[in-house]
Amino acid sequence: MAPRIAFHNNYFKAASKDVWSLINETAAAAEKETGKKVVNLGQGFFSYSPPDFVINAGKQAFDIPSNNQYAPARGKPQLLKQLSTFYTNKFQRPVIPDNILVTTGANEGMLAVFFGFLNPGDEVIVFEPFFDQYISNIELTGAKVVYVPLHPPKDIDERNIEGSEWKIDYQELESKMNSKTRIIVVNSPLNPVGKIFSTEELTRIGELAIKHDLLILSDEVYENLYYGDSFPRFATLAPEIHERTLTVGSAGKAFCCTGYRIGWVVGPSDLIQYALAAHTRICFSSPSVMQMQIAQALEEVNNDKTSNNYMIQNREAYKKKFSILCKGFDELGLPYTKPEGAYYLLVSFKKVKIPEDYVFPEELQGRANDFKLAYWLIRELGVVAIPPSEFYTKENQHIAETLLRFAVCKDDAYLEEAVEKLRGLKKYL
Amino acid sequence: MAPRIAFHNNYFKAASKDVWSLINETAAAAEKETGKKVVNLGQGFFSYSPPDFVINAGKQAFDIPSNNQYAPARGKPQLLKQLSTFYTNKFQRPVIPDNILVTTGANEGMLAVFFGFLNPGDEVIVFEPFFDQYISNIELTGAKVVYVPLHPPKDIDERNIEGSEWKIDYQELESKMNSKTRIIVVNSPLNPVGKIFSTEELTRIGELAIKHDLLILSDEVYENLYYGDSFPRFATLAPEIHERTLTVGSAGKAFCCTGYRIGWVVGPSDLIQYALAAHTRICFSSPSVMQMQIAQALEEVNNDKTSNNYMIQNREAYKKKFSILCKGFDELGLPYTKPEGAYYLLVSFKKVKIPEDYVFPEELQGRANDFKLAYWLIRELGVVAIPPSEFYTKENQHIAETLLRFAVCKDDAYLEEAVEKLRGLKKYL
Repeated sequence: MAPRIAFHNNYFKAASKDVWSLINETAAAAEKETGKKVVNLGQGFFSYSPPDFVINAGKQAFDIPSNNQYAPARGKPQLLKQLSTFYTNKFQRPVIPDNILVTTGANEGMLAVFFGFLNPGDEVIVFEPFFDQYISNIELTGAKVVYVPLHPPKDIDERNIEGSEWKIDYQELESKMNSKTRIIVVNSPLNPVGKIFSTEELTRIGELAIKHDLLILSDEVYENLYYGDSFPRFATLAPEIHERTLTVGSAGKAFCCTGYRIGWVVGPSDLIQYALAAHTRICFSSPSVMQMQIAQALEEVNNDKTSNNYMIQNREAYKKKFSILCKGFDELGLPYTKPEGAYYLLVSFKKVKIPEDYVFPEELQGRANDFKLAYWLIRELGVVAIPPSEFYTKENQHIAETLLRFAVCKDDAYLEEAVEKLRGLKKYL
Repeated sequence: MAPRIAFHNNYFKAASKDVWSLINETAAAAEKETGKKVVNLGQGFFSYSPPDFVINAGKQAFDIPSNNQYAPARGKPQLLKQLSTFYTNKFQRPVIPDNILVTTGANEGMLAVFFGFLNPGDEVIVFEPFFDQYISNIELTGAKVVYVPLHPPKDIDERNIEGSEWKIDYQELESKMNSKTRIIVVNSPLNPVGKIFSTEELTRIGELAIKHDLLILSDEVYENLYYGDSFPRFATLAPEIHERTLTVGSAGKAFCCTGYRIGWVVGPSDLIQYALAAHTRICFSSPSVMQMQIAQALEEVNNDKTSNNYMIQNREAYKKKFSILCKGFDELGLPYTKPEGAYYLLVSFKKVKIPEDYVFPEELQGRANDFKLAYWLIRELGVVAIPPSEFYTKENQHIAETLLRFAVCKDDAYLEEAVEKLRGLKKYL
């Protein structure tokens, strides 16, 4: 035998199988063995196409030669212009192209911020539950993640609760800040809880960020999906908070096109420049055709001040989707966190009794109980959900071990089908 | 004044203005001040559109809902299949989807390999001249770049030379390898020289890689643009070399669509898995529509065994482009490295006499002489070229200080226009 290359990055060597692979493989195996289609409310991709005005803009964009070549690293001027208008309205303060960086998906936008601002040994505060990509994205820079859990009420398994009942312990939060802390990451609307952080919560976090001189990285990829009257943002608060905030947005979430890989970062130009430098080195520039599509889609939204506005219609459509699924769980008496934003429903399965002799596969040993719930639900009822303990450190997984996350970004008929299948739970209650 | 965030990544703080910004800004200013359009043979983007079969495939792809959503992290199955066929032919050994990773441009492919295999303190060998993104991509991982210059002949300013005359000093190369060395990066066809590494050169590099247990990262983004009879590759050599080689390719270079951000890494599956893990964390997945376009474009190429094959026609078209530009420099008596591959011509301007009292801007102080040549050429003749000392360390910039790089990936008429403008050099010879 010839010699073999035995070295690789220690970070990736240590990584165990991610939740997406594990759940998708379980679902595929279940379909193969039973011959029946599962209903997949697992991963947060859309089961339907973007609106026609987005698709048509793409077909047209190809006909302009420059749209087939590199975009400027910061982004296509047409998209920067429309984003300026969009966020000038949303932030209620002037936003110009220098305040914006277009990235290859929101994920690469977060990564560009981490690489722009972090040095090895720095610390970043992340709330639990967290979006799993944050952790690897931060650790790739050599910085360390410091976790702070949100605290749901003790009776989360007994009754429907409000997002506001997932509480921050501010004393606990501040105790995690020290001279090495550089960034605090906040995700609102919050995946997988559906909570929207209130103005009061954002202000108190912002005051701590000022006190400890932190950058606020506000992941607002679900910004257009809020179901109350308004959506509070760090960028609309006091100037001392705004000037240390970078806001991340997503075309994929806004226009149902997760495969286009267009996101952005918005904030003070003296901060954006470091994210731009990192972005240029990570992937040079983002897909030109998709930038032109999103420019045209945003122009449509920016110019339509009526209630036919796509964003408003979309929120109404999502309220209906949630009502379909919530009604199903109401019927079963399984409690959930009432959705204030985003497109996930977090449901307690504490009342569901899995037969004691049920056999689970080897790879679920050592995982929290919600992984077993998810496995059983796929195999026995043909419904796919995500176990949220994946979004916790080992220490805090107990918070989520009775819960499952259901994505509602699917056709209404598909959601009805899920509800029908979930009725099969009745005999296990 | 409120407090300001003063921290950022030390790497980006130290970076000076990149060559692309500097040259593009000089060109824009020259156009504005003179009112005359410059001819831009600077950056390697195409001045024309991809072939119709690529554009049409894109328009069709939008109509399938799943093409608007996330692709699998490894890539769309359709593209993996066509790449398997393409590289099974090229490597003359079986290539299966497990041997392939689709990335968001070749650049992100290189970055994913670096993050998959490097730990802080590791070393990577890079030849000079180098593609500038390599350096930051390697340094982002915390690894160190170790430079080894290629040596052109002493009379490079006197006569046209062959690519093979840019020589490797193998003793010097091996002297840079030690227990910390993990990867050697080789770019063939070589930007900006146009050299293609011979089978003998690749074999000797490969033997050193085996001896010192290095991964070979073979950047072959210009693989379809070679002007001799064949293009030697590491992946076609002995199994002991092949099994430690990751080859990087680019849809942008292959099909004139740099704005699509599709590239790939091909190699043994036990190596690819680490690049896949890193890629998943860097940008999750690559644009779906563009993956479907390139799948269809490759299918066209894979199925067409005639001399009408797009790749063959494209090589012929580039031979013509080079002949237009070379004839111009022949007429002026300015010598160059004869292009064997890629789409750049590296020309000696030693014989050009810039007036001694010519005034250069402040920001060119401290840059090598070729930056002044490039500046003067833009301002006085309206032709944009890239100063190749940017692709060298300070220590070795003297090798390139008489040279300029011209990109020929432009319309023939545009190249003729460049030649006409370059005739203005006659009065400075």
